[in-house]
Amino acid sequence: MMRIGRLVVIGMGLIGSSLVRALRDAGAVGEVVAVGRSEATPRRAVELGVADDWSTDPGRAVADADMVVLGVPLGAVRSVFEAMRGRVPDGCVVTDVGSAKACVLADAEAVFGEIPRWLVPAHPVAGTERAGVEAGFATLFRGRRVILTPAGQTAPRAHAQVRWMWEATGAEVIDMEAGRHDRMLAATSHLPHLLAYGLVDTLGRWDASHEVFQYAAGGFRDFTRIASSDPVMWRDICVANREALLETLRHYRDDLDDLTRMVDTGDAEALEAVFRRAKRTRDDYLYVFEK
Amino acid sequence: MMRIGRLVVIGMGLIGSSLVRALRDAGAVGEVVAVGRSEATPRRAVELGVADDWSTDPGRAVADADMVVLGVPLGAVRSVFEAMRGRVPDGCVVTDVGSAKACVLADAEAVFGEIPRWLVPAHPVAGTERAGVEAGFATLFRGRRVILTPAGQTAPRAHAQVRWMWEATGAEVIDMEAGRHDRMLAATSHLPHLLAYGLVDTLGRWDASHEVFQYAAGGFRDFTRIASSDPVMWRDICVANREALLETLRHYRDDLDDLTRMVDTGDAEALEAVFRRAKRTRDDYLYVFEK
Repeated sequence: MMRIGRLVVIGMGLIGSSLVRALRDAGAVGEVVAVGRSEATPRRAVELGVADDWSTDPGRAVADADMVVLGVPLGAVRSVFEAMRGRVPDGCVVTDVGSAKACVLADAEAVFGEIPRWLVPAHPVAGTERAGVEAGFATLFRGRRVILTPAGQTAPRAHAQVRWMWEATGAEVIDMEAGRHDRMLAATSHLPHLLAYGLVDTLGRWDASHEVFQYAAGGFRDFTRIASSDPVMWRDICVANREALLETLRHYRDDLDDLTRMVDTGDAEALEAVFRRAKRTRDDYLYVFEK
Repeated sequence: MMRIGRLVVIGMGLIGSSLVRALRDAGAVGEVVAVGRSEATPRRAVELGVADDWSTDPGRAVADADMVVLGVPLGAVRSVFEAMRGRVPDGCVVTDVGSAKACVLADAEAVFGEIPRWLVPAHPVAGTERAGVEAGFATLFRGRRVILTPAGQTAPRAHAQVRWMWEATGAEVIDMEAGRHDRMLAATSHLPHLLAYGLVDTLGRWDASHEVFQYAAGGFRDFTRIASSDPVMWRDICVANREALLETLRHYRDDLDDLTRMVDTGDAEALEAVFRRAKRTRDDYLYVFEK
């Protein structure tokens, strides 16, 4: 059986701590080091038994790592790469968990002069609206997808190790071109987050906002759950995946214009056609969610 | 203890059948008659033990009713009122369960020449994305709100009976002016449904739609759950509450324009401010959903 000797997690939040818990349960990891910008989170990870050791110095922490996982918001990836430059030991593999992937490859190229052979960008398509090391749990990735977006020069051995690590958590691992990943996720994840944040903020700034939420039902609760997600993480995703997000926003706004016209003119037939098509689409794809 | 002798439910769907189940559990109803446009649904209600008798003739069914509940889509309310004209017996109370309320009062005025004293429009703010008599369950309204929008001329006795009926289901019953109800619900329910239907339809019409849904995570599942709702019911709500829905749509679209500009210019600070504010708003009002 394979095993990661020394795993360094830079940014030990929901995803990082869930990964560690899952790997520990699978007996797939030896020592775990939590790295944070300040002491609080990595120390807490040690207190919780998630990490064995902690550090605030990514450059020193990676120097004897076998596997490095970046769990930081996308806006912090570049500075972490900078701290790691020249410190990644032979045989060490580096991956991340960001929700956009072309930007990670671009940051790597900018910092290292080329995309390093040891870098395997990854995106576990799993999460909750909760954040932080204490929100993590070992089964978060079970039956979920993890998308790897290796570049042409990525070492097959590095690629295989990251695949193996995520499979050990119970996830289904697939490969995808980074740009394609970013367009897919802009549509199914980044745009819905933007829309949900937008709606809650629109209502929250109403005069009657206190009252309006009193009459919200279960549909509103579910629709807006993602607006309780981490603002910094989502700020960075929206900026990092700007182009794909804008493209899907444009499509959506055109369609929303059409819907607005249908409501304005009371075009019941056209509204029903859209609603029927959408219901059929969602019901047809419901099986995705039963996995 | 009060009790409804003969309850006639015209349109025995999720809400109507849940109401009957709850009232039966509370010992609050005697005989139940299910009325439908065709035989299938009311007969099924009898088979399921929800109703004792069935009919396809609303005019005849209401002739010896103590309480009449309209569970039909809003677009059918007027024709049901027409079928009931001159047939509502003395002492009988009529209510409905529609998600918009000014339109019900307007339909009543158009059909009966004035808003009848026996009419108490109501909206149980509860539901699931499932529809139909078989989807009903007795606890649907427990701890949920039911909003009554009586008019000035509504008989206090009728008002009190409808309040009592809904309290018997475990709901919290409040009164509100119909126009205010419609504005509130446009924001927290009608607009979210329109947005969710719109997003699923936008993605469903993509070339890569089959693939795109494969990479959807839990956030997407929750965000789009309401797009599995009944298309006819929601078509009617959007048409019936057209003005309030358009007003909230306008606010939302202005804010979405702002968000789009922030993404376009990569204005991380402004995006973070919106996301933080939205998260705080949602988290502050989370207690609403714990009831």
